[in-house]
Amino acid sequence: MGAVREALDALGLVDHHCHGTVSADLDRAAFEPLLTEGDAWPGVSPFDSPVGVAVRRHCAPLLDLPRHAPADEYLARRLELGWREVHRRFLRAAGTDVFCVDTGYCPGRLTAPREVADAAGGSAHEVVRLESVAESVREAGVEPDAYADAFRAAALDAVRRPGVVAVKSVAAYRTGFDLNPARPSDAVVTGAARHWLPAGGRLDDPVLVRHLLWTAVDLGLPLQLHTGFGDSDIRLHRADPALLTDWLHLTAGTIPVLLLHCWPHHRQAAYLATVFEHVYFDVGLTLHHVGPARAGAVLAEALEITPFRKLLYSSDAYGVAEFYHLGALAFRQGLAELLQGRVDADELSARDALRFARWAGRDNAVRVYRLPDDSPGGE
Amino acid sequence: MGAVREALDALGLVDHHCHGTVSADLDRAAFEPLLTEGDAWPGVSPFDSPVGVAVRRHCAPLLDLPRHAPADEYLARRLELGWREVHRRFLRAAGTDVFCVDTGYCPGRLTAPREVADAAGGSAHEVVRLESVAESVREAGVEPDAYADAFRAAALDAVRRPGVVAVKSVAAYRTGFDLNPARPSDAVVTGAARHWLPAGGRLDDPVLVRHLLWTAVDLGLPLQLHTGFGDSDIRLHRADPALLTDWLHLTAGTIPVLLLHCWPHHRQAAYLATVFEHVYFDVGLTLHHVGPARAGAVLAEALEITPFRKLLYSSDAYGVAEFYHLGALAFRQGLAELLQGRVDADELSARDALRFARWAGRDNAVRVYRLPDDSPGGE
Amino acid sequence: MGAVREALDALGLVDHHCHGTVSADLDRAAFEPLLTEGDAWPGVSPFDSPVGVAVRRHCAPLLDLPRHAPADEYLARRLELGWREVHRRFLRAAGTDVFCVDTGYCPGRLTAPREVADAAGGSAHEVVRLESVAESVREAGVEPDAYADAFRAAALDAVRRPGVVAVKSVAAYRTGFDLNPARPSDAVVTGAARHWLPAGGRLDDPVLVRHLLWTAVDLGLPLQLHTGFGDSDIRLHRADPALLTDWLHLTAGTIPVLLLHCWPHHRQAAYLATVFEHVYFDVGLTLHHVGPARAGAVLAEALEITPFRKLLYSSDAYGVAEFYHLGALAFRQGLAELLQGRVDADELSARDALRFARWAGRDNAVRVYRLPDDSPGGE
Repeated sequence: MGAVREALDALGLVDHHCHGTVSADLDRAAFEPLLTEGDAWPGVSPFDSPVGVAVRRHCAPLLDLPRHAPADEYLARRLELGWREVHRRFLRAAGTDVFCVDTGYCPGRLTAPREVADAAGGSAHEVVRLESVAESVREAGVEPDAYADAFRAAALDAVRRPGVVAVKSVAAYRTGFDLNPARPSDAVVTGAARHWLPAGGRLDDPVLVRHLLWTAVDLGLPLQLHTGFGDSDIRLHRADPALLTDWLHLTAGTIPVLLLHCWPHHRQAAYLATVFEHVYFDVGLTLHHVGPARAGAVLAEALEITPFRKLLYSSDAYGVAEFYHLGALAFRQGLAELLQGRVDADELSARDALRFARWAGRDNAVRVYRLPDDSPGGE
Repeated sequence: MGAVREALDALGLVDHHCHGTVSADLDRAAFEPLLTEGDAWPGVSPFDSPVGVAVRRHCAPLLDLPRHAPADEYLARRLELGWREVHRRFLRAAGTDVFCVDTGYCPGRLTAPREVADAAGGSAHEVVRLESVAESVREAGVEPDAYADAFRAAALDAVRRPGVVAVKSVAAYRTGFDLNPARPSDAVVTGAARHWLPAGGRLDDPVLVRHLLWTAVDLGLPLQLHTGFGDSDIRLHRADPALLTDWLHLTAGTIPVLLLHCWPHHRQAAYLATVFEHVYFDVGLTLHHVGPARAGAVLAEALEITPFRKLLYSSDAYGVAEFYHLGALAFRQGLAELLQGRVDADELSARDALRFARWAGRDNAVRVYRLPDDSPGGE
Repeated sequence: MGAVREALDALGLVDHHCHGTVSADLDRAAFEPLLTEGDAWPGVSPFDSPVGVAVRRHCAPLLDLPRHAPADEYLARRLELGWREVHRRFLRAAGTDVFCVDTGYCPGRLTAPREVADAAGGSAHEVVRLESVAESVREAGVEPDAYADAFRAAALDAVRRPGVVAVKSVAAYRTGFDLNPARPSDAVVTGAARHWLPAGGRLDDPVLVRHLLWTAVDLGLPLQLHTGFGDSDIRLHRADPALLTDWLHLTAGTIPVLLLHCWPHHRQAAYLATVFEHVYFDVGLTLHHVGPARAGAVLAEALEITPFRKLLYSSDAYGVAEFYHLGALAFRQGLAELLQGRVDADELSARDALRFARWAGRDNAVRVYRLPDDSPGGE
């Protein structure tokens, strides 16, 4: 093992974007859909995909099973240990110190930020999902001409809670990024609210979505944006972050914007992070789906032209605790493969490789989110 | 050679999408344009491209020539042997058991499905190209308000012929995929037919193209869709299969949809195959154009997140028999490189590698097209 | 070192697209922004990006510093030597015989084509940027209905100067490529000129941009088009050269069209170069930004399906002389890695590898630009 991998293994990561996991024991029917952005279908098990292969290879040993254990054995052992023990084992193994947890998408009962952090022996912060705030404002009842103020007030309340370090938007899912980039006027927002408030449903009005993005600018906290792939709700061609370029010009000099996931548009994200001071990105979610075997290749594309100050680590773990571990492992293995390979080819100095590894795994997030950091070697 | 390559070499492939080849002897002027999606131009021989290099490397020995034989020698030997013998040699070498042959594009005399299968010692099925059916309906004469019924009846007749296992559309060439996804009403179809029928030419009316896609749904057979690159008639940005997402939502639970070729949008195709139960894909055509030297890299991108149940093998051989062999070789070499590499790195078990190789090369197609299969180890 | 690398090292390259460099000594504040398509920001030094790493690795030794020298030492030594000596050293090291210099973008004082060529011991040609010609016509004063003729006359004057071998357009920056492909009528051009001439500013009117592209066709010289990434002025999704397909159909059989840079749309560019006789491309700019460590991977994608007659070499050096050297080095290292790897795997003959290397590095440009060539082995 090279020096870069050793350093990354010893580094307490900052996972700047993740979720909670289901706090219940999961049988096959409940577990498989959580493994994939698709679903489990007759004859098509998510275990027979790169992420499933990676779980059987890299997660089974943490449940005392042999590498590449069959899916049935894996699931049986998981049930035998119980979800609390499984959760604890994967979070201990993740080597992650800090978790920024998106608490806005909870179709069922999920572990809370503090539960995640406690199991890992680390600390937790919260990320507020703005679409959920907007939908709560509507559910609480509001007149169209009061919507803009009510949403802003509710968002301010939400981010003033202790531990909140960022906001997030899933505009990529709701409208895509091919939006008018300008801040909408109050009258235009009221007009849109007049239609959306009585119609109900999730926030997918283009005017209200861009109003949401501009409200994020007013809040002053870093904004996380889902980009690239996800479940079938995404229109992949409208989730290309390059479509945000006009909006990024208008918001230059304001808040940090963090492009999440990005695949298969990670080169587009890398370009934006290279030419805009306030843009950062990660390939979270992507890394555990492609698995450690392919993480280096994806990172190599993501880092082709990009300042090493601009890549962050996230697991985007959701639903099952395996992904805290698998995301961290794929990140460490892929980044070490990339950097060590360049050191071995004398294309990069060992000293720089160690700096860049630490930046991506921890320091860049500490800097963007202004996290306290008393770790050895911290900035 | 590793175990995966040995297993793939021994496996009789199902080539789920190919064409016939020119049943005539070909001089340089006739052969070169069939090598490329472009053309042969003064000073720019298709032999001096990856596919031409691969033909000289991997096909020349089957004509009793040394590896990397010069183009002139290759063509002279090809003429000397005669097209029937050349056809027989490449089809014997392909190691393909089953051919699903698109019979809808025949600018000249091409080998029929049975000729292809007989030369290979395998079996053939037919794929009906729906645009050709529509154009035949127009040529036979029909009133605009009878077009929808006449097209559907003709399509039903076409697919009820013995041996037909699928239909195909080249909507990517005609309009691209940025279509209204909804099924058009009869009145709208009649209105469009009123313009297209007298105007003649190929089917490129957006309403009639989407009527064609919905008629495919009614037929109940798997639908093959050209996506990604092809000749200069393609607008590559409109052949991105992600543009089909809305239509795929509307057709979920109906027919299997098979995205063909896909490059350079193979990651988009892989995403769709991951999140939609009824979507499958291949990188046929791509593999022989990039050649065995690059097939593993393309497959690695195509399989980054994808369930191994969702990739199929096709050669998309057209025009020259070399491509039955070269497509199969590139597939076997590329997939073996990918899977064996992961086995060697202990990222994948040998047992899983063998399963996945067999699925992609044969079993997935048997399943989607409901082909008879009495091969050893068949499902 | 393999035979391909030796041959490429010995080959005098034709750099078919580059710029001049700042003819002044540069401190850190002046140097860093020239290293990147972004900028230097607090805490985010361009030295800590792939291009900065490559400069410290591959350029430092030419300034008598150790490999991977720290940025401060690098800058101090650069100042100590003075810009003329630095310029001379990097141009001597580049191994480039011929420079085609775009003289149209000169925000400050830049070296002239002859200065570049003299320092390298080579020869220089000029590329005329058509947007600059149009803007000069406006500044000189012209009536709207005389604009079309005045622009054409000015462009003709510009290209008739000695040494001019091509024209260039930055339409990608100004409007993107999603343009009406047809040649605009005189009346339409006059109408557009009526708005643009008094408004001033850079040429970004869609009608006048496409009039510019059609004027390039009339001039009869090769046309270079910026495509793909650049600084933050680019909308990356509108700089996809696939959007030019309709225009390429209309201009088939006229002038050579050279797609520059292309990343991350280099596969799209490769497709166009494969299916259109008059289309060529390069991955200049990209290669020094990704650095020698990643150049082979980018070239492998760019050359996946492409005739080897269609790739050209350019450095796109601008601002700092390092990039003449680094671009050439990345090209040689990347192309040798690709071709030698295939020779070693017996996928390509050594003889073909040497031919293709020479074509891409020199002969293709000699052919397209009809350059005099008395080099040994020239065509």
